[in-house]
Amino acid sequence: MKETEYLEIIKKELSDSSLIGDDCAFLPNDTTKNSGLFITQDSLVENIHFKLSTITPYQLGKKSVNVNLSDLASACAQPLYITISLSLPDSLGREFVREFYKGVNDVCTACNIKVAGGDLTGADRLYISICAIGKKTSKYNISRKNAKYDDIVVTTGFHGDSAGGLELLNKGIKADNSLIRAHLEPEAQLQKSGILSKAADFDFAMMDTSDGLADALYKISNDSAVSVEIDFDTVPVSKELKKLFPETYKSLVMWGGEDYQLLFCIRPEIYKKLDKKQFFKIGRITKPEGKNVVKIKDGEKLYIINKEVFDQKSFKHFGEK
Amino acid sequence: MKETEYLEIIKKELSDSSLIGDDCAFLPNDTTKNSGLFITQDSLVENIHFKLSTITPYQLGKKSVNVNLSDLASACAQPLYITISLSLPDSLGREFVREFYKGVNDVCTACNIKVAGGDLTGADRLYISICAIGKKTSKYNISRKNAKYDDIVVTTGFHGDSAGGLELLNKGIKADNSLIRAHLEPEAQLQKSGILSKAADFDFAMMDTSDGLADALYKISNDSAVSVEIDFDTVPVSKELKKLFPETYKSLVMWGGEDYQLLFCIRPEIYKKLDKKQFFKIGRITKPEGKNVVKIKDGEKLYIINKEVFDQKSFKHFGEK
Repeated sequence: MKETEYLEIIKKELSDSSLIGDDCAFLPNDTTKNSGLFITQDSLVENIHFKLSTITPYQLGKKSVNVNLSDLASACAQPLYITISLSLPDSLGREFVREFYKGVNDVCTACNIKVAGGDLTGADRLYISICAIGKKTSKYNISRKNAKYDDIVVTTGFHGDSAGGLELLNKGIKADNSLIRAHLEPEAQLQKSGILSKAADFDFAMMDTSDGLADALYKISNDSAVSVEIDFDTVPVSKELKKLFPETYKSLVMWGGEDYQLLFCIRPEIYKKLDKKQFFKIGRITKPEGKNVVKIKDGEKLYIINKEVFDQKSFKHFGEK
Repeated sequence: MKETEYLEIIKKELSDSSLIGDDCAFLPNDTTKNSGLFITQDSLVENIHFKLSTITPYQLGKKSVNVNLSDLASACAQPLYITISLSLPDSLGREFVREFYKGVNDVCTACNIKVAGGDLTGADRLYISICAIGKKTSKYNISRKNAKYDDIVVTTGFHGDSAGGLELLNKGIKADNSLIRAHLEPEAQLQKSGILSKAADFDFAMMDTSDGLADALYKISNDSAVSVEIDFDTVPVSKELKKLFPETYKSLVMWGGEDYQLLFCIRPEIYKKLDKKQFFKIGRITKPEGKNVVKIKDGEKLYIINKEVFDQKSFKHFGEK
């Protein structure tokens, strides 16, 4: 079963599901208007999201935190606290815990985040669940529902590298390579999120591309009830990815996950003010034509992502790697 | 390795471990003095904390939330939000998710809590991690470090029932029995926590007895640098437990976990004001004598819990049930 199907069941069972839908939920402050906290929780499961044979405990500590910080970045929230629940087989032992927390601590120190507890239990496989809390920094509301006709669609960096890195690791390649690094050591786009937070003067749509670029485009199109038109040639793709995957890189760019870049839709006047070396225009929001779709123009070719394509191709959370 | 040993490693690696130590961490509000939020995260792992053959998905949903609410209760925090990360084998399917969330929703509705997201991933075993956020309601600080000489040691209900229920379940008994119910359907002591929050007029020590009564007594004694003297005859024990476990019930009362009662230490003047049918005096805080110890008087017998006894007997998080 797909994550979206489970989500439908969950929404049906909850009396109030109004806080569910974006990567983060906003918890308003009851004493100060216009302020409040964002909360997000994400889990990494051994052999589903990572293999201990390809990632070091230190890298895993860093990645586990960054995955959650990326969700805060996508809400223009400034990270403040995390809690960490670690369930592990006793065989991993103290050296694993030490290295994992060294990674956690390095990210927390760099981003001025405090670890506010969590728990530690046994398990027969390693399981990591992190909850991250951040402060609202933008006066405006950010949600994947906010894309509007004529918005510019923007992203913050390379797509496909992480999925390419994963393919290399799965082939047994462990060389020091930018794709493998992208997969094992992703960094949440907190600085760019901060720049955008200051530049915006209106509610806008944003999410991270943790589940893939096409996935994020489709979700924004669907939740905002708009269509999206992308020019594939303008999507940032690394030379390394094209070189190592000359036949398949386009699919990795669109459908590979875990690049943890930001994807947002913003008014042209605001986009003009942004640094074009950090923020890449890849398309625009068009009026829905009957159904909301994502159109990807690739030279003469046109790919359409509609519900059927999305359901079939989107990143599977429930499959083994 | 024991949880406490892992915790020492974690504290060593973190540049700032000041928020670690109690069941909840307090996140101060930077705009309003004396207000703020509490956060806690707890995980339940299949075959470590529960078996799907003995607990229904509905009960598991309720219990997973209550386990976290109990941590908030132990900080006199009023629950506001939870996030839920569920990792499950696809074979469990939609019926499991529906029933689990029905249980979650029933607790949330009763306690006026909103579900603020989380995530859903695959796994080869069921893994549940919940993060709960609550509001500070007491003007005073509550920590297991706050027990003082001459405080009265108080608890809120039966101990040992949950561990007795687990023993029955492990023997294959599934009758409708108060011990089994105590194990499968624990309830966080939010109301009693609220009463105490209003009654207290000073910082005090409190925690829940999720890891056992003796465990909680020892941790308070150790963290507050005091000794504790308990009169076993005054500890609330159910008739059912004595009847079904005539030989072993005392050990279940002291060392069995998951009763999710509150244990607190408070000045005698405050204890006088509390309802004696809801709050049970079981002992008092004495001056440390060389080392901090817990003394349990049982008629003519005297049991001492010191570091060695604690290390040997405390609830093992890392063992299979």
